[in-house]
Amino acid sequence: MSYPLYAAIAGVIGLLFAGYLAMSVLKEDQGTQRMKELSQAIFEGAMAFLNRQYRTLIPFAVIIFGALLYGNWGNQKLAWGQAISFLVGASFSAVAGYVGMTIATKSNARTTAAAMRGLNEALSVAFRGGAVMGMSVAGLGLLGVSVLYIVYQDAVIINSFAFGASVIALFARVGGGIYTKAADVGADLVGKVEAGIPEDDPRNPAVIADNVGDNVGDTAGMGADLYESYAATTIAAMLIGVTVFPGRLEGIFYPLLIGAAGLIAAIIASFFVRTTEDGNPQMALNKGLWGTNVLTAVATYFIAQSLFADIPASSAFPSGVPLGLTISVIAGLLVNVAIGWITEYYTSYNYKPAQHIASSSLTGPATNIIAGIGVGLKSTALPIIVIVIAIAVSYNYAGIYGIAMAAMGMLCTAGMVVAIDSFGPVADNAGGIAEMAELGPEVRKKTDKLDAVGNTTAAVAKGFAIGSAALTALALFTAFAEEVIKSPGVSSALHGGHLVLNLLEPKIIIGLFIGGTVPFLFCAFAMEAVGKAAFEMIGEVRRQFREIPGLMEGKAKPDYARCVDISTRAAIRQMIAPGLLAVITPLIVGFGFGAQALGGMLAGVTVAGVLLAIFMANAGGAWDNAKKYIESGKHGGKRTEAHSAAVIGDTVGDPFKDTAGPSLNALIKVTGTISLIIAPFLNL
Amino acid sequence: MSYPLYAAIAGVIGLLFAGYLAMSVLKEDQGTQRMKELSQAIFEGAMAFLNRQYRTLIPFAVIIFGALLYGNWGNQKLAWGQAISFLVGASFSAVAGYVGMTIATKSNARTTAAAMRGLNEALSVAFRGGAVMGMSVAGLGLLGVSVLYIVYQDAVIINSFAFGASVIALFARVGGGIYTKAADVGADLVGKVEAGIPEDDPRNPAVIADNVGDNVGDTAGMGADLYESYAATTIAAMLIGVTVFPGRLEGIFYPLLIGAAGLIAAIIASFFVRTTEDGNPQMALNKGLWGTNVLTAVATYFIAQSLFADIPASSAFPSGVPLGLTISVIAGLLVNVAIGWITEYYTSYNYKPAQHIASSSLTGPATNIIAGIGVGLKSTALPIIVIVIAIAVSYNYAGIYGIAMAAMGMLCTAGMVVAIDSFGPVADNAGGIAEMAELGPEVRKKTDKLDAVGNTTAAVAKGFAIGSAALTALALFTAFAEEVIKSPGVSSALHGGHLVLNLLEPKIIIGLFIGGTVPFLFCAFAMEAVGKAAFEMIGEVRRQFREIPGLMEGKAKPDYARCVDISTRAAIRQMIAPGLLAVITPLIVGFGFGAQALGGMLAGVTVAGVLLAIFMANAGGAWDNAKKYIESGKHGGKRTEAHSAAVIGDTVGDPFKDTAGPSLNALIKVTGTISLIIAPFLNL
Repeated sequence: MSYPLYAAIAGVIGLLFAGYLAMSVLKEDQGTQRMKELSQAIFEGAMAFLNRQYRTLIPFAVIIFGALLYGNWGNQKLAWGQAISFLVGASFSAVAGYVGMTIATKSNARTTAAAMRGLNEALSVAFRGGAVMGMSVAGLGLLGVSVLYIVYQDAVIINSFAFGASVIALFARVGGGIYTKAADVGADLVGKVEAGIPEDDPRNPAVIADNVGDNVGDTAGMGADLYESYAATTIAAMLIGVTVFPGRLEGIFYPLLIGAAGLIAAIIASFFVRTTEDGNPQMALNKGLWGTNVLTAVATYFIAQSLFADIPASSAFPSGVPLGLTISVIAGLLVNVAIGWITEYYTSYNYKPAQHIASSSLTGPATNIIAGIGVGLKSTALPIIVIVIAIAVSYNYAGIYGIAMAAMGMLCTAGMVVAIDSFGPVADNAGGIAEMAELGPEVRKKTDKLDAVGNTTAAVAKGFAIGSAALTALALFTAFAEEVIKSPGVSSALHGGHLVLNLLEPKIIIGLFIGGTVPFLFCAFAMEAVGKAAFEMIGEVRRQFREIPGLMEGKAKPDYARCVDISTRAAIRQMIAPGLLAVITPLIVGFGFGAQALGGMLAGVTVAGVLLAIFMANAGGAWDNAKKYIESGKHGGKRTEAHSAAVIGDTVGDPFKDTAGPSLNALIKVTGTISLIIAPFLNL
Repeated sequence: MSYPLYAAIAGVIGLLFAGYLAMSVLKEDQGTQRMKELSQAIFEGAMAFLNRQYRTLIPFAVIIFGALLYGNWGNQKLAWGQAISFLVGASFSAVAGYVGMTIATKSNARTTAAAMRGLNEALSVAFRGGAVMGMSVAGLGLLGVSVLYIVYQDAVIINSFAFGASVIALFARVGGGIYTKAADVGADLVGKVEAGIPEDDPRNPAVIADNVGDNVGDTAGMGADLYESYAATTIAAMLIGVTVFPGRLEGIFYPLLIGAAGLIAAIIASFFVRTTEDGNPQMALNKGLWGTNVLTAVATYFIAQSLFADIPASSAFPSGVPLGLTISVIAGLLVNVAIGWITEYYTSYNYKPAQHIASSSLTGPATNIIAGIGVGLKSTALPIIVIVIAIAVSYNYAGIYGIAMAAMGMLCTAGMVVAIDSFGPVADNAGGIAEMAELGPEVRKKTDKLDAVGNTTAAVAKGFAIGSAALTALALFTAFAEEVIKSPGVSSALHGGHLVLNLLEPKIIIGLFIGGTVPFLFCAFAMEAVGKAAFEMIGEVRRQFREIPGLMEGKAKPDYARCVDISTRAAIRQMIAPGLLAVITPLIVGFGFGAQALGGMLAGVTVAGVLLAIFMANAGGAWDNAKKYIESGKHGGKRTEAHSAAVIGDTVGDPFKDTAGPSLNALIKVTGTISLIIAPFLNL
């Protein structure tokens, strides 16, 4: 039983390290009074968003808490265990969100101030600011799972920890995605177009909401998303481990220890993140990521060796258990790397796809849009091939447990991935603050350099989030199949046999078709929601310009918090429809048509969801960078027809990459965690 | 053995009726000399396209012919039977294409001339002109399958008839889809924009190609597509019938007789298609469709009763075989009706979706595009629900054979559906000829009325084609599972058991992922191909304007045929990449990873392909009609910002609805027919 304790200790170390990073960031100089004010406004806006979001979720959480108690009432340990695990999973996500967002939004002005001193100083502040979120996510995820396991000693009980995480992630992704684009449109349309004031002007009531939006999407949304993947994968792997290694607990402990290894590796590798005055900050971040990967890979082998050396090779583990597991984890780590490269190829303007979109802009918006959609559709193939290879390799060396371990290998580095991803909005806001506070060009040059790196890391992290969602979904799918057999309705029909989801059964095909349709419908809802929330946001910004005297003259301060609150409420209200679609469909299919149909649906949601998510994320990223390519002076530069066309493409791409795409990750996983929770109640 | 003979006779009757219709149309007055010339040019263009297309396919056909011989060389009857069936399937498709296109393109000026006399006369000519394609498709399909069955008495041998049909359909859909949009862009961009001459001006070398394009897409493409669905469904149903009714042949005959019933019903119902001077031509066409549906439904029951009355009810047929089969066929017929309504709702500008896109155009092209994509994504849900209900109902009443019968019920009306669909381009061209020949407004009013109906029928036929492709794919999928067991590599591994495609096996999941990705990649290729072919077309049009002296002054005739040939060659060349992707992927997966992975891939291609096809067809249709809604005077009408935005949406929608969307049907089915052909050679 000492292994879960080691994992819990690693979680605590991660949190202590997050605390250390937070303190070190908060000690940094905040710069001028103006910079402080701007930073404070963004911080308040972010908190207003989180407050409203979590407040809205309380009734949902209470209903689910009650349902878990009620559904399992016959087994008091299970009932309370699941209900409490759910609450812990959800509240740890909220805690990570609060802590991470607080520090991230308090790091922006400090990064700007550090940029006055040097590039490495600025990089260091921004990275440490983002790493608090990364370490909190991984630390709380690992601590939660391992402590709950120590308490309940049953992976089935604690799987509602992942369910709690996934409900929060769904709301954080969809709500946050709607929010960030509504604020973006509100700030641009009313401020820039109607009122005629420049971008990032502090007189614009929505400017802070817009800056908050960056954090909401890339810090809070991504954090909740990967926290969920982390928790769900760990627990699914533990559930599969129970079956694969009957009679021994190492199959349960191994995922926890891999998580611990990844977290400690990330802490060590975070010290590699440093650059010189003329260096490339991207290289510094890469060193952090590669350091984490290599250290984890090495640790993986020794842990597997110490746990499984006594088990002989078998058909599931033809090269022996330790080597098989190590290869699986490394396959997952390599998926990270490969998807990062592929995403960069399809979205960066240094490569053909985005350049092709840029040159298609010369003949107008229609050809720009067609080219962008073409690039997005095409970009699905390579990531799928990478995922498929990882499945094949890990399965061949370590059976179904191997697939879960590949997912674990991908996700155990989440601490570093979230740290690097959260670095993006900090750098972006730092640039905005430098702009608004009218600092010298040598400062802006440094913040611009960091911002550019942040754009790349954001696109790469999106690829990571989707790829890991795919592997997590497969782990959940396998765990579902293991768990559903324990349902009396299923086991009696199967006469003790294994669950088979035969694609030739019409029930499964029906489930597959319905599952495939859900992501399409969900995307449509999410995109419509952006339109409606933007409409409400526009109303509020117009009202403030109209009703607050002296605002345009700079004599009065706009009500940033109210603006943020309005757009938050609009986002939360508009996310109800897609959220309910995601939560209710598996319940209808599972209880209405049975476990087989639900199994088919899980597969359909995963395949269609992953494909649509890759399509949307990469099309959006490529449109964005095609515009930036033209703005860099190509094809005539700004204020040309080509640029206007590229701006239209970028606008279409915004809800693709920042709302619908990322929300699909949450959809895929919440379908899996709900299915796992209701598995014991299903009929065949 | 007399039943297949009856089906063959029904096929001959269908062809005789097509001949009668053709003669009656050719007897009609062609109008003025100018009208004759224009019609002749379109006819020549269409033939130039078909000539080039079929010529290109000869080497492909020879390779496949050789491969079928070589692969089955050990069994001479099978080898020659499959090779010959393949050739017959492909050449009958070509014959239907030639005959149907000839009459359709010879009916346009005759329809215009008839419109001088009255609306019913014009409707009658246009409908008869289109019905030749409809009756040829159904007649040749039925004749081919039944005669080959009479000759070989083995459904396994003749399944390569469907394979031949599907290869032609793939090329017809992809090549035709690229062609029609390349010609459209070439005519618009060089003629209207660069040379400044009006739309449909006979001096524009691409104007005929543009008019040909309408026929190529909606007549030849749709005809080949539904001919393929018809053949593939009939044969798949026969293959399933062998297993479901062991020891008796009625399961093989029934699909043939349903086909015969549908064809005779369509012939009878075609006499219901008439209208009054003030009547609604849509109602006249609806009478034809409903007449076919009702007559077929009634016939279905009596045929089932006479074939299966002696078989007692069983678990697969809880209400007895005759009633179970009748319900299944009616379920298929109702899918037609329901998908027709749903498609009309999502694409017609009388309803909210297209109007929503139109009002989103007020805020520019970006919101127009986002709204259109939203509508397209949303429109996937209802058709899938309809298909899923049809699967559930037909399976509950008649087992897996019932699902094939639902597909058969949908497709046995193909004669009428293709007739109504081919009516569209005839009416469209008739309007263009009236315009170019400067006929009076009372004639144009009538042709406009017919053209408007043609737009609706085109959208509805697209829905029909996708829905039937989905059911056909399921029938092929089931037939594949039946056939693959006969492969030595599979049967030895299964030890005589049934094939199970367990979604929990990583091989199946890998197949599913790869299958899901293929439609995405295929769409990207198809959309890129349109861009490249349009580029070549533009070059040719520019060349003619530059090099033919006196062209702009109207003193010299442009070289329509060469323009058509150039764009045809460009289209054919550009379709190689998507075509090869479609043909080669199942071979790689099947031979490389085995029957299970291929089964998973079939499911993935079907689900993702159907969803993408519905999305693309409906988004494209809705964008088109949103533009027409604004042109009808709403939101300020033509020459407004909103109209420009709607034009951009329409341009994006063009390759969606006319290239990528329809090609996906062919992709889905060719994947199925290839899998069925290679089934006997696979390992598990």
